Order: sequence, then structure tokens, then C-alpha cells
Amino acid sequence: MAKLLVIHGPNLHRLGQREADYYGTETIDDLNAKIQAWSVRMKIPVDVYQSNHEGDIVERIGLAAGTYNAIVINPAAYTHTSVAIRDAISATRVPVIEVHLSNIHGREEFRRVSLTAPVCRGQICGFGHASYLLGLDAARAFITRQKKA
Amino acid sequence: MAKLLVIHGPNLHRLGQREADYYGTETIDDLNAKIQAWSVRMKIPVDVYQSNHEGDIVERIGLAAGTYNAIVINPAAYTHTSVAIRDAISATRVPVIEVHLSNIHGREEFRRVSLTAPVCRGQICGFGHASYLLGLDAARAFITRQKKA
Amino acid sequence: MAKLLVIHGPNLHRLGQREADYYGTETIDDLNAKIQAWSVRMKIPVDVYQSNHEGDIVERIGLAAGTYNAIVINPAAYTHTSVAIRDAISATRVPVIEVHLSNIHGREEFRRVSLTAPVCRGQICGFGHASYLLGLDAARAFITRQKKA
Amino acid sequence: MAKLLVIHGPNLHRLGQREADYYGTETIDDLNAKIQAWSVRMKIPVDVYQSNHEGDIVERIGLAAGTYNAIVINPAAYTHTSVAIRDAISATRVPVIEVHLSNIHGREEFRRVSLTAPVCRGQICGFGHASYLLGLDAARAFITRQKKA
Amino acid sequence: MAKLLVIHGPNLHRLGQREADYYGTETIDDLNAKIQAWSVRMKIPVDVYQSNHEGDIVERIGLAAGTYNAIVINPAAYTHTSVAIRDAISATRVPVIEVHLSNIHGREEFRRVSLTAPVCRGQICGFGHASYLLGLDAARAFITRQKKA
Amino acid sequence: MAKLLVIHGPNLHRLGQREADYYGTETIDDLNAKIQAWSVRMKIPVDVYQSNHEGDIVERIGLAAGTYNAIVINPAAYTHTSVAIRDAISATRVPVIEVHLSNIHGREEFRRVSLTAPVCRGQICGFGHASYLLGLDAARAFITRQKKA
Amino acid sequence: MAKLLVIHGPNLHRLGQREADYYGTETIDDLNAKIQAWSVRMKIPVDVYQSNHEGDIVERIGLAAGTYNAIVINPAAYTHTSVAIRDAISATRVPVIEVHLSNIHGREEFRRVSLTAPVCRGQICGFGHASYLLGLDAARAFITRQKKA
Amino acid sequence: MAKLLVIHGPNLHRLGQREADYYGTETIDDLNAKIQAWSVRMKIPVDVYQSNHEGDIVERIGLAAGTYNAIVINPAAYTHTSVAIRDAISATRVPVIEVHLSNIHGREEFRRVSLTAPVCRGQICGFGHASYLLGLDAARAFITRQKKA
Amino acid sequence: MAKLLVIHGPNLHRLGQREADYYGTETIDDLNAKIQAWSVRMKIPVDVYQSNHEGDIVERIGLAAGTYNAIVINPAAYTHTSVAIRDAISATRVPVIEVHLSNIHGREEFRRVSLTAPVCRGQICGFGHASYLLGLDAARAFITRQKKA
Amino acid sequence: MAKLLVIHGPNLHRLGQREADYYGTETIDDLNAKIQAWSVRMKIPVDVYQSNHEGDIVERIGLAAGTYNAIVINPAAYTHTSVAIRDAISATRVPVIEVHLSNIHGREEFRRVSLTAPVCRGQICGFGHASYLLGLDAARAFITRQKKA
Amino acid sequence: MAKLLVIHGPNLHRLGQREADYYGTETIDDLNAKIQAWSVRMKIPVDVYQSNHEGDIVERIGLAAGTYNAIVINPAAYTHTSVAIRDAISATRVPVIEVHLSNIHGREEFRRVSLTAPVCRGQICGFGHASYLLGLDAARAFITRQKKA
Amino acid sequence: MAKLLVIHGPNLHRLGQREADYYGTETIDDLNAKIQAWSVRMKIPVDVYQSNHEGDIVERIGLAAGTYNAIVINPAAYTHTSVAIRDAISATRVPVIEVHLSNIHGREEFRRVSLTAPVCRGQICGFGHASYLLGLDAARAFITRQKKA
Repeated sequence: MAKLLVIHGPNLHRLGQREADYYGTETIDDLNAKIQAWSVRMKIPVDVYQSNHEGDIVERIGLAAGTYNAIVINPAAYTHTSVAIRDAISATRVPVIEVHLSNIHGREEFRRVSLTAPVCRGQICGFGHASYLLGLDAARAFITRQKKA
Repeated sequence: MAKLLVIHGPNLHRLGQREADYYGTETIDDLNAKIQAWSVRMKIPVDVYQSNHEGDIVERIGLAAGTYNAIVINPAAYTHTSVAIRDAISATRVPVIEVHLSNIHGREEFRRVSLTAPVCRGQICGFGHASYLLGLDAARAFITRQKKA
Repeated sequence: MAKLLVIHGPNLHRLGQREADYYGTETIDDLNAKIQAWSVRMKIPVDVYQSNHEGDIVERIGLAAGTYNAIVINPAAYTHTSVAIRDAISATRVPVIEVHLSNIHGREEFRRVSLTAPVCRGQICGFGHASYLLGLDAARAFITRQKKA
Repeated sequence: MAKLLVIHGPNLHRLGQREADYYGTETIDDLNAKIQAWSVRMKIPVDVYQSNHEGDIVERIGLAAGTYNAIVINPAAYTHTSVAIRDAISATRVPVIEVHLSNIHGREEFRRVSLTAPVCRGQICGFGHASYLLGLDAARAFITRQKKA
Repeated sequence: MAKLLVIHGPNLHRLGQREADYYGTETIDDLNAKIQAWSVRMKIPVDVYQSNHEGDIVERIGLAAGTYNAIVINPAAYTHTSVAIRDAISATRVPVIEVHLSNIHGREEFRRVSLTAPVCRGQICGFGHASYLLGLDAARAFITRQKKA
Repeated sequence: MAKLLVIHGPNLHRLGQREADYYGTETIDDLNAKIQAWSVRMKIPVDVYQSNHEGDIVERIGLAAGTYNAIVINPAAYTHTSVAIRDAISATRVPVIEVHLSNIHGREEFRRVSLTAPVCRGQICGFGHASYLLGLDAARAFITRQKKA
Repeated sequence: MAKLLVIHGPNLHRLGQREADYYGTETIDDLNAKIQAWSVRMKIPVDVYQSNHEGDIVERIGLAAGTYNAIVINPAAYTHTSVAIRDAISATRVPVIEVHLSNIHGREEFRRVSLTAPVCRGQICGFGHASYLLGLDAARAFITRQKKA
Repeated sequence: MAKLLVIHGPNLHRLGQREADYYGTETIDDLNAKIQAWSVRMKIPVDVYQSNHEGDIVERIGLAAGTYNAIVINPAAYTHTSVAIRDAISATRVPVIEVHLSNIHGREEFRRVSLTAPVCRGQICGFGHASYLLGLDAARAFITRQKKA
Repeated sequence: MAKLLVIHGPNLHRLGQREADYYGTETIDDLNAKIQAWSVRMKIPVDVYQSNHEGDIVERIGLAAGTYNAIVINPAAYTHTSVAIRDAISATRVPVIEVHLSNIHGREEFRRVSLTAPVCRGQICGFGHASYLLGLDAARAFITRQKKA
Repeated sequence: MAKLLVIHGPNLHRLGQREADYYGTETIDDLNAKIQAWSVRMKIPVDVYQSNHEGDIVERIGLAAGTYNAIVINPAAYTHTSVAIRDAISATRVPVIEVHLSNIHGREEFRRVSLTAPVCRGQICGFGHASYLLGLDAARAFITRQKKA
Repeated sequence: MAKLLVIHGPNLHRLGQREADYYGTETIDDLNAKIQAWSVRMKIPVDVYQSNHEGDIVERIGLAAGTYNAIVINPAAYTHTSVAIRDAISATRVPVIEVHLSNIHGREEFRRVSLTAPVCRGQICGFGHASYLLGLDAARAFITRQKKA
Repeated sequence: MAKLLVIHGPNLHRLGQREADYYGTETIDDLNAKIQAWSVRMKIPVDVYQSNHEGDIVERIGLAAGTYNAIVINPAAYTHTSVAIRDAISATRVPVIEVHLSNIHGREEFRRVSLTAPVCRGQICGFGHASYLLGLDAARAFITRQKKA
């Protein structure tokens, strides 16, 4: 049976407590509740994982194959600095989708370069919490496709 | 009543007849049929417009206010070269969402810089035809929000 | 008898309806009225042309010789991206003056590079509508000089 | 039966009326006459098309397959700025040859980068009108090769 | 009563004695005479100040508030190297207009970057002595506006 | 009652055992003793935390609000590579002061760029152990100011 | 007996009259009063010098040896443009400490490069007037050290 | 008695399960078996350590002095991003040798810059598992040399 | 009587034995045979010279004046690194035409910069062996022109 | 029977007579003696070749196929400037291994870019004479592998 | 009668009191004595001028025409930052020769760019005091040439 | 007894036959005659060597020690491309002086970077043939100094 993994990168545990202009005032619990609502609605179980540690995220991706059909990841700050997470993504056969709450293309110059996006299947950014739900919708397509094949 | 506009940029009229690796073999008619199916399913009318002319796209965006609640645009090649379309997007009060069939972050260097994304609400790329449908889903949220306000 | 041409580039047909911080709230009709008032005051006929199409502007400049004594052009977004308009300007023997409503030197990095300015006679920017009138004043000097010669 | 297409980019309609140092004093009619003479001599029909509009050139290339065996194009200013024409060239199965009147490698820095050349079969520059005729000679080889296959 | 200040930067005291191609053969006295003629014609007193010292220009700008309604400055070589003059301009509440005799956009690469222009109201360049007179015309608008307010 | 937090970044646990030219021969215990002496002298409790883990530092900063009035941090190597710590700093409402033992401006090129400094209140570098004490002095001012408000 | 020198760079004579966001509303007299209060408190005489002239500052630094035990300098705009002041600092045997009112790392790109910092002993920035007092504290350490030696 | 340490960086625990083109199909256990075979053959004990955590690797290097005569490290992704590991290497007096399975010079641009190599004794790359064994051979020379001294 | 010189640069003596994707499987003898066939057909003698030595090519170009009417050169690898050959070309009064077998614009970044092309009359690339024959055709035009003059 | 080739690039004939810090005091004869000792020990004949001429090295590599099973090359200065040697390496089917006496990653910026390494099988640097012996060890693996196949 | 001017730039009044590695221990008086000895030997009067002020040097160069036959200038720090002195040099008809005590090509990166050298007749650097005397020898040639003409 | 070596780089054998603007019309024999006249006048034998081969120049420099007291070299085109000659210069204990006929700082961008100058004692450029004679004068100082020591 199909299953999805959502990974929240560094500082996302503090969501709603930081820059409201970019990230809104809702907390990570609010966001996770929306993810679970999606899970129930779509009848696809979704595990959620948050870590501030680059190495933890590398390991979680490394363990995904065999358990999850797709990963939706918001690498947050590590988007711009982590070759290790990039390597983990390109090493796994699980399809990975990158999401961002804010529109990273409209922010500081260094946030416009994503080290991870080139090895993901696609990227969704700028829609706040909805970025995750759109990412899950996109991930769902992979499940359907895999079943057919 | 709410209404959406989809704009296809240059060369998209030839979809399915060019690089299959990046864009698949389905034609623009196949894609438009999916967009109309979404429209019927969501009960939101969607107009579709294609042009290879930068100036035409500038004008179409300029005329959108008052008629459309949101625009889903795939600026294609103009993503990387058109300040004029960027200016048209930032000049309109209609929310604009950028979509791409392929994952532009994993292609040639010059395709990784988007002149238009910084003034859009968000960007979705890499999911083939589904990028458009996810973009329409994202656009639908703006309608809902506008109604509430 | 002397005659001048004013060319408005892309998005200027929407003037007054876009970013008020940079461009004010007056429309292109207000601006054209000021240009005609100048024309009457100076007793020099002025034709005004607006296009969002790079190719149209190229053609209009190509046709200017023999009809106009000078051109005042606001290439807007094409200032930063159009080698074609640059080539048209350097190909014509009619003197061309570049004007901008806003101070382009104080805006985004990519707006500080002008492809067209190096082949114009001079550049005037930052004075709102008055940039055009100062440009016409400068153009008038060429007429006077030509008459003397 | 084999047929070739020659495309002249922006400002080339004004040939002979602009910078004589780079482009000589002969007009586009003189050039086209030489092209037709080549056509007669080689017994290969050649259509000639000129446009100042990026979108028009995109469309003309898009329509070439099925009608022409090869395209000889001088993208002029669009050589350096048009990803749209590049995409059109790489999308068509018709072989495309880039030509330039002047030696673009010996001019301004920005003229040394060609966005279109990487997706053409080859590039010929610096021989004035002869660049076109050499380009047609090169195109003729494709016809011969296609016939053999 | 309104009053204006014109500042000439380094080497301008030698005007007419240096590169005639860029600056013509008229001297700074000829230029100042034209400025005084404008002053008489417009009935607005204009003070003229020349210095080759960055620090002097910084101080003159610092003292302008309370005495002058606007400054027309040709920072000459300091345009490209002086953060100190830039800071003086952005520190004063007097509006400042940058002028240049030659079209700096058409000269050496290092002359195309202006450190001072981003903090001025606008820039006028390429019209020889007329650049100053156009700058004074532009400055006059500020006086009018201030009186109205 | 006011309280301060000092964070030592990676490799600082080995202080005095590495490059004596830059960092001297005193150990982290010597440094911490000086910090505690300051604490006693100023009657302001100071907690000290050292970690070689980017994620740990992110979390410690995330937890600071409500407990500490200010943070003095030496991000060491992470100064130049960690967007995650930068984000943690800009997300907390606790004022953060960056300190360095050595003068980073006089070392390798890559050490002159600080990703964290732009979101700190200020930076102090080059004074060896005294950099921390000066940082604590600066932090003390925030306490005083907060009390007054 | 020990003595210190404080040097204020260009535009600082106008402190409190310029950009309040960066520099506050207190004047240079307020700042100098705080410096004198520090001097009295520490029983160390402090001379204060302000100049808008790069050459004056070069000369003042050149004369410092033999009179002063350390220099606290805010080179202001010259921080980013003056190799001459850099050379003067690296030529003198008097230790020099660089201070800035604002956090230069969080401002315009060109303000993040300091030509002078690499040859100073250390840099303190971002604490407003307190940057000077912290700089004096740091300078005091050099006196103590010199006495001991 | 002499002893060596081998450090495997991030994602190497997944060796043989990722990109076969670059890394082959053998697992980390296969590689470690070869390392132990070398150890037995050379009669030099070798400890092997793998971590995906930058901080762990920093700490392991920090603890090496006194226990190991040399370190052979494959920093993997951290080669290109970790100043912290670089600092740990340059802080230890134990000689460190950098190895890579693939030829990093023939891969993506960002993989060609090594932050750690400049502070290592040497670098060996491109020989697959043999890179480690050659690294151990090189490390063995340091032991011999130390014994002699 | 007219005479032409063809120069083959480094590694071309191994043609057909290296990368077939770029250079095909025919050898330099095959290529030279085609050149001689052209020579016979056109009744213009052609000398062919190959060298792997930069200095040899410099000398051969230096000796060409007086013997040859034009040179067709494929500088191969020296295209991108030799200022010496560039200087030899710009020092001779013999017209020089640069040719390449492959389309250098579509290969590695460093192959897109030609040091020699700016001082040649023109460049032809991408047509395999035919690049040389087209180059000879172009060279023939210079002979004709010289005879007429 | 297997045979190897060692190539010494420019200035290596002077080894031991130049910069002792980087290269030690032993001469090329000392180094060659070690290479021959290896040859005897391994029972694999090794030819050694030194040249200061880029063209000679190009030719020697071009002739290697059929005679040698692998090449160990220290291109020395040509590492950073020779596209010709790079092309020779990528054109031969003989595996090539790049070695350097010093750790080129820890020296001048321009020495960190290797034009030849991307087309070699691997690179070994920083171990003095031992770099060659490790390179020969690596080359020996190719022979073994070839025999098996 | 012929006369020469030597200009010493900023900090040179402190010669012999600063970095002995680069500049030696002799003072400016020692240097000037050598210049006067040259003057006596050659029977050509030489005036010497030193200033730390950019503006002063600009003015001195501006006044040179009519009095001096050539200028030998060591712009010191202003070499790298002063467009104003560059403009003064290119504005005067007096030939100017640039000299430096140290070999600026072997020092910090920013010292390798000379803004003034491109408009001087030539540059001499690296010979200590002898650079000035060689510069005077070179200047003497201009006098001879002028007399002949 | 003292002896000097002059090395002429590539294309200098053609002096007087190439670009007269930069190099004048005198031949290398004229130049060598002046060098010999200097030799006679100074009673110091001078050998002259010209080569177009990078490797030859490397070897000639390598052989200089023991025979010559100093080298005056004009590396011509190799100035900008040869690390091999740079290494040869820094490897010899003979002092080397770089000379150029033209002012390389005032020419094409790529000619302004000298790879060889940083390891020479000094550089003289822009004085035509006199650059060599000034270089010999500078070289003579080394002889004098060596004798004294």
C-alpha cells in the first residue's frame, strides 16, 4: 500500500514564531494538521519528519526506499547549502518533490540558488502551507503511475 | 463570477512535436483538454491563450484585470529574457502563477534564472502537464480568499 | 519643416495603472497631452507612437529618417534586453534621445544596464513626465543646429 | 523535391542603409538577388523571409518541417537575446545553419555570445553576403545526404 | 526666495583644454556664462562652485540645506569612485540632480557605473553644456513644487 | 532578571590546541573563566554553550526567547556556510551579537563573507578573548534599554 | 603617559542630521561628549579629529606614532574606497581599531567590503555610539599590554 | 605503535546503492573489507568511522591526535561545503589525506572546488575503492618518516 | 599565380582515431585528399601543413606573406589558449580564415571562447570536413578580389 | 606484455634546483631511479620521458596506444594552460593518470584549475616523489583489469 | 629650456618609516637627493612635489603644461582608486610616466589594477628608488624628441 | 666577469613588419643593434636569443644560472598564457626583468594580466625599443650589487 513522507528542514519547528511576512502566523502543528487532513481525504498515509540536522535528513532520505512511494521535502536553509542532501536525493530511487512556503525567487540573491532542486522531480514555491498540499498532490501522481506500471 | 486565464508562451503551440525527453509526446490540444476537464470539474471557467509574441503576452496580461481572478502562465523561453512580461505581471493587480513543464532547475544554466518568477505569487515546475493543473489548483485558492474578503 | 517623434515602449499604455511609487498616477493620455502642449508652445509638430512589440519599434525607428529630425524614446523594459532596438538606433542617422520616467540607477540591478543608451545621443531619467519634456527640449537643439548647418 | 529557406532577422531589411563598416553598402535586394542566382545555378528553390519580430521567426521555423530540407538563418540581434528562437531551432527536425555578415567574434563583447549557435549545425560569419552563399552550400550537403539515406 | 547651486567636479576647471571629442572646445567660463544667462532669464539666482577635492564637495553639499532649493552636480570622475559624495547627497534633504557633458553610457566600462546617481533624483547626460541647462530646468520644477506645497 | 547566553561554534572546544597565530594558546576553559569573571563583576548570569553541530546551534537559538535577554555568538566556521543559523537568528526576537577571536577581514577570501552578520545587531572581531567580553558589554546595553522601556 | 586618538571620517560632522534609520538623531557633539566622558572615567586622554578629506586622514595617521598609543577610526565612506588610508594604517606602528555606527554587513553590497579592516587590529560595528566606546575599551587593552612589556 | 583512521563522509553508508556510474555496485562493507585486508597485510591497525553529520566528523578529527598517526578521509559532499571540517583538519597535528572514489575534476562545476584539500597533505581521486588503499599507502609513509625522526 | 595554405593545429594528425562523435572516423589523409581534389577542381594550388607546436604555427604564418594569398587555419586546441598565434595572424597581411570541424559553440564552455577568431576575417564551424572546403571557397574570393584590384 | 609510460612536463628537468619548499631537493635523476626501482620490484617495464614542449607531449601521448597500457603524467605548468594536451589525453584509448609533486589545491588560485584532470582517470597530488609511485600503483590496476577482460 | 616634474603620491612622505620589505629603509629625502643628483648629472632641472591629496595632484598635473616637458608620477595608492588623476593625465598634453617602488604585479590582487597606467606613456615598477631614475631616463627621451621636432 | 641575456618572445622576429601603431617600423635587427651599442657603451657583454617556442624559452632560462647575472625578457604573447615560463623564472636564481615595447595596460583586457611579472623583479613597458635599454640599465644594478656583496 502506498505511503508518503514529508520532511521539514531546519527552523520549521518554529514556524509561526518567525518572520510573519514570509511565513504567516500559523504554527507547524497547524501545517501538520492540514497534511493529515489531506492524508485522510486522499486515503494515503503520510509520515511527517522534522529535523534541524543536515545529517539526520540525509539519513531519513537514505532509509525511505522500500517504505515510501514519494517524498515531499522543504529543505529550508539547507536548500542553498547542502550538497549532502542533494546527494541523498539523487542516490535514492524514491521520487522527491521540493516545496517552499515563500517564493524563494523573490527574496535574497543567495536564496535563489537551489542545490537540491536539480535532482528533485519538480519544485513548488510561494503558496504558503498550500505548497505542501500541492506537493502531496504531485506526489500522488507518482503512486498512481507506479501502480499502473 | 470567478474566471481564470492560462497563457502558453512561445513554441508551446508545437508541444509534443519537440524534445520528448523534456516535454513528452502529448500535444497542446491534449494539454488544453486536461485544462478544460479541470474547468468542468471545478466549475470555474478557464480561458486559454497561446502566443509566440512577447508583445502579445504583455498586452493580454495588461487586459486581464476586471475579467480574470488569476493567471496561470508558462512564459517558456520568455521566462529567461523578458523584462517586458515581468513588468506587465508586476503592473497588474491580478495574481499570477508561473508554471513549467520541465524542471528548469535541472537544465542549462541560463534556464535557471527566471526574470518573471520574482513578481509572480509562486512557481511550479517539473510535473509535465500536471504543473498546469497544480497551478490552477493554486489559483483557485485566490478566488476563495477573494470571496471571503 | 522640423518634426519630432516620441516612442513609448512596452507597458507604457498602462501608465497610471501600475506601480504608483515609480510612475505616479497620471495616465499615458495625461502624458501625451503634456507632449502636445509642448508641441504647440514650441511650434514643432510631434508624433507619438506606442507599442509593446520589439519588432514594431525596430520598424518605426527604421522608417524615421526623412520624416523626423529627432526621436525621443522611452524603450522601457526593452532598454535592458533589446539588441534589435539598439541596432535600429545605431543604424538610423536620426539623432535619438533616451528618456525614463523613474531613476533607473536607483532600482533593481538589471535595470541599471542600458543596451540602448550607448548608441543614443544622451539619456534623461528620474523626472517623471518631465523627462519627456526635457528630452524634447534636448531634441529641439538638434533641429536648430541642423538648420544652421 | 528539395527546397531551402533563408531567414533574415531584425534590421536586415535596412541593409546597405546602416553601418557600412560592418555591413557594406549593398541592400537586402542585392543580397536576395545573389541568393536567387545561387538557387538558379544549383537548381534548388530557395524561399526568403525577413522579419523584425521574434515571434514571427519562431513561427516560421516551427512551420518549416515538411516543406524545407534546411534553413539558413541570420538571426541578427536576436542571436544574442532570443531563447525563443533557440528553442524553435532545437525543436525542429530541419537542420539549421547560422550565418552572419560581419565577424561577430571581433565586435562588442555582448555580440560574441550566441544563444542560437549551440543548437544549429554550424556557424559561418565574417564574409559579408558570401556568408549566406557558403551557408547555402553547406545546406545543400544536407539535401544530398538525405537523398542518399 | 529660491536659489540653486551648481557644482563642478574634478578637472572641469580645465574644460575646453582637454579631450575635445568628448567635451568640446568651450571653457568653463563659457559654460558658467550660459548658466548665468539661464539664471537671469529664469529670475532664479544660481551659485557656481568648482573643486577638485572630494572632501570639499562633501562639505559644500552638507552646507546646502537652508540656502539652496536644489543642487545640479557634475561629479565628473568622482561619479565612479566616491561613496563619500554619495553619502553627502543621500544625507541632505536638498534634491540633487546629476549631469554629465558626455554620454557616459557610451564610454569605458568603468564610467558606466555611477555611485552617486542612485541617490540623486535623476540623471541627464550626453548633451554637452546643455546637460547643465536641462538640469537647471529640472531643478526649477522642484522650486515650483515646493512653493505650492 | 536579566540573563545572557554565549554560544561557541565548531572547533572552539579545541581552542589553544590549534593555530596559535590566529587564536593564541589559551584554552576554552581559560576563555570561559574570563566570561564567568565578567558575569560576576557585572552581576549578570551568563550561560555558555558549545557545539560542533549546526543543528544544535539552530535549536539553542530557537529556545533562547523567554530565557535570555541577548546572545553573544561566535559561529566560527558556520559564519561562512550556515543559512540555517542565519535563519534561526533572524527568526528569534532575542538580540544577537556576532564575535570572532581573529580579524576575519584579514584572512582567506572565503572567511570575509559572513552569512550571519547581516541579521545580527553588530559584529566584533580581532581582539582575541576580549572580543567576547566586548560582546557581553554590548549585550548588556540591550538589557538596560529593555528595562527602561 | 598613554593617549588615544579618535578619527571621524567623511560626513560624520553631519551626524544626527542624516539617515536616522542607520545613525540615530544624536549629533557628533553628543557622540564626542560620550567619548570625553569615557576619557574622564578611564583617566586616559582622548583627542578627537574629524575630516572629510582622505588626504587629511592619511596625514593624521602618519603623525600618530610617538603621540598616541592607539587609534579608533570610523573611516565612514572611505572604508570602501581608500587604499591611501589603508596604506597609512599598515605603515604606522600604532595599533588601529575600525568602528562603524551601523552594521555594515546588513547594508548595500558595496558597503560590505572594507579596504581598511584587513590592516586594522579588529573591527566593531552595529552598536551606534557604543561602537566607539567599545573600540576605546579595546584600545585600552593595548595600552595595558604595552605598559607590561 | 602506529594506527590509522579512515573517515567516510555523508551518504557513503549507502555505497553501492547509489549512482553506479560514479561509484560502482560494491557496498561500504566490501570497501571496509578491503581496508581491513590492507591493514592485515601491512600489519597496521586501521579504525573506520562513518558519519553523515558534519559535527561528528569535526569531533572525530579533533580527538585523533595521540591515537592515530594519520587520517584518510573521504569528506564526500562536505568536501565542497564544510569550513568546519577544514578548520578541524588544519587544527590537528595529525597528517590528513583526502580521497574520493570518483574523479571529482570531471563532474559538476561545484564538485571541483574542495574546501578541505588545501589543508590536507594531498589528494587522491578517481580510482574507486583503490583511492582509499592508495591513501593508506601514502599515510603509511608518514608513519615510517615519524619513526625515523 | 594564386596559392593557398591550409594549417592543421594540434592533434589533427590523429583525426579519425579520436572522439568519433565530434570528428567522425575519416583520417587526416582523407581530409587532405578532399582538399587536393578541391585544389584540382578550382585550379588553385594548396599547401597543407600540420603541427602540434604553437611556435611552428606562429612561424609558418609569419612566413606566409609573399607566398600565399590566404590561409585557412584550424587552430584546434590553440584556438582557446594561444595569444602567440593570434598575434601572428594579426601581424600578417595575408587574410586568414578560421575553421573548425565541430560546432565549438555547442561544446564545453572553454571551447566557446576563441582568441584567434577576432583577428581572422571570418569563422566557419560545425560542418566536419566541409568546414575546410567552405573555408577554401571563402579564401578563393579574396584571390578574385585581389586580382581585380 | 604490459608496459607503462611516465611523462614529466616542463621545468621538471630542473627538479631539486628549484623551490625547495614545494619540490624538495632531490633531482629528476633521483626520482627516475625510484621509478625504475618500482619497475624492477613490480616486474613492469616503465619508460620515462621529459619535455618542456607542449607539442612534444601531445605527440608522445598520441603515439602511446599500442605500446603502453597506461600513462602516468605530471603535466606541471601545462596542467593549467594546455587544451592541446587535454585533447591528446581524451583522444587516446590509453588510460592516463595525473600526478603532482605538491598539493596544487593549497597553492596559487590559478594552480587549482586543472584542464587535464577532467579527462584523466584520476589525480594524485601532494606526496612528493611518492605521488608518482602511487600513480604507478594505480596504473598497475588497469593492467590487471585488462588482462582479466 | 627643458624641465621635468616628479610627483610623489600619498604616504610617500613617510617612506623608510613603513613596510621595509616592500619599500626599503631609505627616506623620501634620500630618494629626492638621488633625483637631484640625476638632475645635476643630466643638466635637466627637476621639480619634486609630494601630496596626500587626490585633488592637489589633479591640480598639479593640470598646471604642468607650459612649464614641464614630462612628468614622472608615483600615484601610490591613488593608482588603484583615482579616476580623477587618470582624467587629469589624459587631459594634459604633457607626457606622463608611471613609476612604482615595488613590483605591484606581485602583491595583493587589488594592487594589480592600475587606473592611471592606461593613459600614461609607460610604466616602470619593482626597482625601488631606481624606478624613479629609470622613469627620468625615459622622460629625457621625450625632451630629445621634442627638440628634434 | 658579468654577462647579461636578452630573450625575445614569439613574433618578435617579425618586428617592424607588424602593427606599426604599437611597435613602430624598426626591425629586430635595429633593436638588437641598439642592444649591442649599449653593451659596448657599458662594457657588459649581452647575448640575445629569440624563440617562438614556449619550451625553448623555458629551457634557455633554465640554463642561465652560472652564465648570466641577469635576464631581460620580453615574453610577448607568452606573458599572458605561459605558466611554464613563469615557473622557469621563479625556479632560477638569476634576477629577471620583464619588458614590453607597448604599454600593455592600455590595450586589450587580456593583455593587462601578466602571468610572468609577479615572479620577475620588475616590469618596464611602453617605451618602444627604449624599454629594453631601460631594462638593461636596471639589470646592470644587480651586477653592481652582486659585486659589492
